[in-house]
Amino acid sequence: MTNTTITAPKGFLAAGLYCGIKASGKPDLALVHCPTGAKAAAMFTTNAIQSAAVIVCKEHIGSTPIYAAVVNSGNANTCTGAKGLVHARRMCRAVSKSLGIETEKVLLASTGIIGHQLPIDAITTGIGQAAEILSDTAEAGLNFAKAIMTTDTRPKQAYRTVNFDGKTVTLAGTAKGAGMIGPNMATTICVLTTDAAISKPMLAKALKIAIGNSLNRLTVDGHQSTNDTAMILASGLAENKPIQSQKDPRFVRFSTTLTDLCTDLARQMALDAEGATRMFTVRVQGAATAAEAFRAARAVADYDLVKCAVHGADPNWGRIICAVGSCGIKVNPDRLCCKIGDTYVFRNGKPTAFDAKKVSAVIAQKEHTITIELNVGKYNDFCYGCDLGHDYITINADYHT
Amino acid sequence: MTNTTITAPKGFLAAGLYCGIKASGKPDLALVHCPTGAKAAAMFTTNAIQSAAVIVCKEHIGSTPIYAAVVNSGNANTCTGAKGLVHARRMCRAVSKSLGIETEKVLLASTGIIGHQLPIDAITTGIGQAAEILSDTAEAGLNFAKAIMTTDTRPKQAYRTVNFDGKTVTLAGTAKGAGMIGPNMATTICVLTTDAAISKPMLAKALKIAIGNSLNRLTVDGHQSTNDTAMILASGLAENKPIQSQKDPRFVRFSTTLTDLCTDLARQMALDAEGATRMFTVRVQGAATAAEAFRAARAVADYDLVKCAVHGADPNWGRIICAVGSCGIKVNPDRLCCKIGDTYVFRNGKPTAFDAKKVSAVIAQKEHTITIELNVGKYNDFCYGCDLGHDYITINADYHT
Repeated sequence: MTNTTITAPKGFLAAGLYCGIKASGKPDLALVHCPTGAKAAAMFTTNAIQSAAVIVCKEHIGSTPIYAAVVNSGNANTCTGAKGLVHARRMCRAVSKSLGIETEKVLLASTGIIGHQLPIDAITTGIGQAAEILSDTAEAGLNFAKAIMTTDTRPKQAYRTVNFDGKTVTLAGTAKGAGMIGPNMATTICVLTTDAAISKPMLAKALKIAIGNSLNRLTVDGHQSTNDTAMILASGLAENKPIQSQKDPRFVRFSTTLTDLCTDLARQMALDAEGATRMFTVRVQGAATAAEAFRAARAVADYDLVKCAVHGADPNWGRIICAVGSCGIKVNPDRLCCKIGDTYVFRNGKPTAFDAKKVSAVIAQKEHTITIELNVGKYNDFCYGCDLGHDYITINADYHT
Repeated sequence: MTNTTITAPKGFLAAGLYCGIKASGKPDLALVHCPTGAKAAAMFTTNAIQSAAVIVCKEHIGSTPIYAAVVNSGNANTCTGAKGLVHARRMCRAVSKSLGIETEKVLLASTGIIGHQLPIDAITTGIGQAAEILSDTAEAGLNFAKAIMTTDTRPKQAYRTVNFDGKTVTLAGTAKGAGMIGPNMATTICVLTTDAAISKPMLAKALKIAIGNSLNRLTVDGHQSTNDTAMILASGLAENKPIQSQKDPRFVRFSTTLTDLCTDLARQMALDAEGATRMFTVRVQGAATAAEAFRAARAVADYDLVKCAVHGADPNWGRIICAVGSCGIKVNPDRLCCKIGDTYVFRNGKPTAFDAKKVSAVIAQKEHTITIELNVGKYNDFCYGCDLGHDYITINADYHT
């Protein structure tokens, strides 16, 4: 069977194990290693409160090459003061010692509960153990994917290939999602690998495009975490002619493929969101500005009453219109239209007769599309959302303490 | 027993009955009448999509005196096009005919499902019946309060008296709440009556202050409805010397009393919010600007993960800090503090040891306060919120169709 994990691209070894953070005993430490060194790029949360892991990862992301990235789950290392920063640096130093590389050439990310100090001794011991079992097998890649999970019920992985100059270039990635997902800069923890030969600036550009059109277009609860980090490592071992310009048609193919891969991860996150049973895409057409197109799409996808209606497969389009009207964008009530799937439910400011059973069946699918036609300008945008189900509350009223 | 309903102030008659809108057969039509004529003021939703009832009520609010207000529940008369406007005007005309008053001296409000035409013949028949049973009894006032309910489980009423110039002035009010509550201009449907003698501009001013500090400081799901309307009618029959200036110390006492009354209604709404079991107040201190103080308070009160933690009586303060950090206000991570009740859980950017059981017991109360000390400026504000429980989803996944 083809390896479709983050160890699929040439040059990557991975490991995932339980080191002692999670009370459940589930895997909580993940390590990826590129012995030949990788070009790297990353995107981070814009929350004013940031994890110590984010602060340290930002210090290291300028280094070239990057040799490794370490991720822990079960503890965010956020709101942990100066001690948290010391712990984040100790994590990188443990990787550096185990692999014989410089500390600043290690990236890191943390995810989990806010406000608790890391069990740093258990983690550094775990890093040593992870370094010893690093492997390029699919099993090792899957273990990495499992070890970054928090309330996810299953690992999220995606894989794509593209041919450049007769060489097969592979891209792969894993992400953790579930809750606290709002579309404002890289969402959750996402680790991507590729063996493409590509310059650091082009890699950063491709990551920005890909995340902007995938993870940043997904909202579960509109909440932006303090730890959001998306990173990509490129080993260059596919030996294609290096991509060094945005005008290179291979850059477009690379970024399109990466976007497609990240969209795959975003869909997996939506369908495994806390309490979610289905997802939907909100498409906004004809907004007055680009910003308003996205604001409206996100307002609908974030609207709890819309999410509840989707959970109940209820074509209660009035809530969609209410969300559009209240988000502060330019609206002409008499030209506003709304479709659920292919069916108009509201047209030019007036309700339209439709087959409620048929539309309910459309909503009851695993995925459906809500289209808002504003008809006040030329800008379009979209956002992914998911339904709001009972388990969101069960998970989030009980998580922690 | 003292009458504490909207018929308590001198000069008001009320009625509430079932006219045929709600499938449940519950009361859905409410009428209040001031035979001697009242000064009136109102506040409305700022949603770009507005109910036909809001549009017509805005046309009539300039009239003096106002003789009556009619409210229907079970149907919002929103997104109903030109026909909806015709229906809203027919409601006022039916009141005008039944009571022998001019059509433009009737206020109206509608609440319920969006996008369905009103059963206008049933409503106009019901208005005729309501006019015949108008009464100043407490029972009639209670029937009014019941007839404006949608998913509320109980009527909300509040009552206050204040002494001006040796005369007892009475204020009373009722509101419907439950869901789709966001603090942006008068929230939900709120009908207030008073026998105070007060000028129309002073009445409008007092209403703005009162709603601004009560209903507009309450968020259940952050959703602003298309129908939000708060109105106050003042008969003047208490025969106090008319309040005509903001500098009159009696104006301050009137507006303080009205604010207190509306805060009472807001608390009742929070505690009866869809699926809610308890409420909380978020106090933000030391923000850089007044707007940022409110934005932060609302961000915490609206944050689903905080609301779930409150539901689970879980002192998961990391989610509070996360909400503060992500709402786009000025934050100094090293000076940020957070208290739950009287207990610091986070101080100057660092976690603080606290008795989790004790803090959990504070959250488990019917009401508690979360305090955020930003320490970056001098502005304070607050917001009321409630927990997010399973019944919010049960109610909103099943409501309609």
